[in-house]
Amino acid sequence: MKVTVLTGGVGGAKLVLGLTAILPPETITAIVNTGDDFVHLGLPVSPDIDTLLYTLAGKSDLERGWGRGGETWSFMAALKELGGPAWFNLGDGDLALHVMRLAAFARGEPLSQVTAAFARAWGIGASILPMSDDPVATLVDTDAGRLTFQDYFVGRQCAPRLQAVTFDGAAAARPGPGVLASIAEAEIILIAPSNPWLSVDPLLAVPGLREALIEATAPVVAVSPLIAGQAVKGPTAKLMAELGLPLTNASIAAHYTGLIDGLLIDSGDGAEGVDVPVARTATLMRTLDDRARVARAALDFAGALAS
Amino acid sequence: MKVTVLTGGVGGAKLVLGLTAILPPETITAIVNTGDDFVHLGLPVSPDIDTLLYTLAGKSDLERGWGRGGETWSFMAALKELGGPAWFNLGDGDLALHVMRLAAFARGEPLSQVTAAFARAWGIGASILPMSDDPVATLVDTDAGRLTFQDYFVGRQCAPRLQAVTFDGAAAARPGPGVLASIAEAEIILIAPSNPWLSVDPLLAVPGLREALIEATAPVVAVSPLIAGQAVKGPTAKLMAELGLPLTNASIAAHYTGLIDGLLIDSGDGAEGVDVPVARTATLMRTLDDRARVARAALDFAGALAS
Repeated sequence: MKVTVLTGGVGGAKLVLGLTAILPPETITAIVNTGDDFVHLGLPVSPDIDTLLYTLAGKSDLERGWGRGGETWSFMAALKELGGPAWFNLGDGDLALHVMRLAAFARGEPLSQVTAAFARAWGIGASILPMSDDPVATLVDTDAGRLTFQDYFVGRQCAPRLQAVTFDGAAAARPGPGVLASIAEAEIILIAPSNPWLSVDPLLAVPGLREALIEATAPVVAVSPLIAGQAVKGPTAKLMAELGLPLTNASIAAHYTGLIDGLLIDSGDGAEGVDVPVARTATLMRTLDDRARVARAALDFAGALAS
Repeated sequence: MKVTVLTGGVGGAKLVLGLTAILPPETITAIVNTGDDFVHLGLPVSPDIDTLLYTLAGKSDLERGWGRGGETWSFMAALKELGGPAWFNLGDGDLALHVMRLAAFARGEPLSQVTAAFARAWGIGASILPMSDDPVATLVDTDAGRLTFQDYFVGRQCAPRLQAVTFDGAAAARPGPGVLASIAEAEIILIAPSNPWLSVDPLLAVPGLREALIEATAPVVAVSPLIAGQAVKGPTAKLMAELGLPLTNASIAAHYTGLIDGLLIDSGDGAEGVDVPVARTATLMRTLDDRARVARAALDFAGALAS
């Protein structure tokens, strides 16, 4: 059974890791948001791609919630000594990814190729596909002006009030190699519990991707990022409030109208106003068992929708 | 008293450090070889400039003989995991220099400007001037073919037999900001005990630099890199043998014919065939006291030549 997951970073990576616990990894494809990608100090950084890589390679830092486990920070210390920018943390080991990517780009290799090489080097069986090899930049219009994603998310900790989100470059971006095929050939398609507006919308803004989802023969199940009207992590709830949206699963389902065949929500949550079939499980993913359970629930739900 | 030193990396940095122990640092200018500079994995690396920076900032690793003290190596470990090239070691803290330089180059800042910013950040009083802001690449013709300097020096540990040295780009390179003025205005000019063929010749290949030395009013004293017919460190002796040159101070003096007014040699060494005045001191620089003594001997000798 081939499963394709549309995903952002941390939350989505947990679901994909859960899938690898119950399916042969070769059957899993993650199509990953690259709207957060940016060039920092000349280095190309792909936060969501790297989170997937670290998570699936078993190298992620589980306590900190981002980056590499066992990381050291000599680079940042030296950077600060030299008066360099300290707002974005780059761990010493993490730098290897960005520097290798810099070298690959200089050789003319696209992001998809260097990502596949990293996954191979680390023995990752699942396919990690950038949504596009073309640059797409998520920009947020806020009461502090238009900000790049990392300035908003890391630099300002999502404090500015969000008004709109745009995906610069998306109109000209082509889906990455294998992206449309993995949607067309999937037997189940999942949308990870990533932020729908900041982490999933960039994928849907790549021309052809939304259409491919609509035309896909596979059932499409989204996992709601809300639990009891709050997001587990990140700015989803704050952002929904600022966009004037009720903090309900109905808002999530409405956001994905026409795209999803079902919404997997938390056991304790209501489904009022949700216009697609609903299934429930405890969607909080703390342990690997949690991740596998949510993944299993999503697959079972999708299977039931298909039959 | 203004002192200008033409220098390569480790050996030259010791002499410059010795000067800072006996003169106000603001009176010292080091004009540094950039022929070893190269782009590694997309990062601009300036080995000799960085050695001067680390040495004068008191951050160099004295035991290893290159790089930063207290360095960590997480980047290299991660790079090897990913199948990246392991032949050139980049320490985690050291990476800050190369990444900051990458970012500065992307902003259009020249090497001289970013070098000065690093020196300021670390409180270095002496001026560290790249010989040129234009790229010059030292290439060595060997029995293993034409090699880049780092491939020859680091990658192959100077094993190939050297036939000739060329400085690619030198003909079009302009002296860096302040370089010619620091030679014209100096009251004493020193040539550090760096490798004359690999580390000092690149400077002399930059159009205008040799002429400035010849026209300078200050006495020019070279410190011989030979002690008892051997080099303290590096491939100088091997290279001289391969070029068919006797391992004598006469060969060093002949190499600098028309440029130097005196040669400072080791206490135990002869001066047969040296066609300029000679002074002697123990030129081996193990301790800071050694460095200050050699610097003092070079200054005193130059002073005597001028009077």
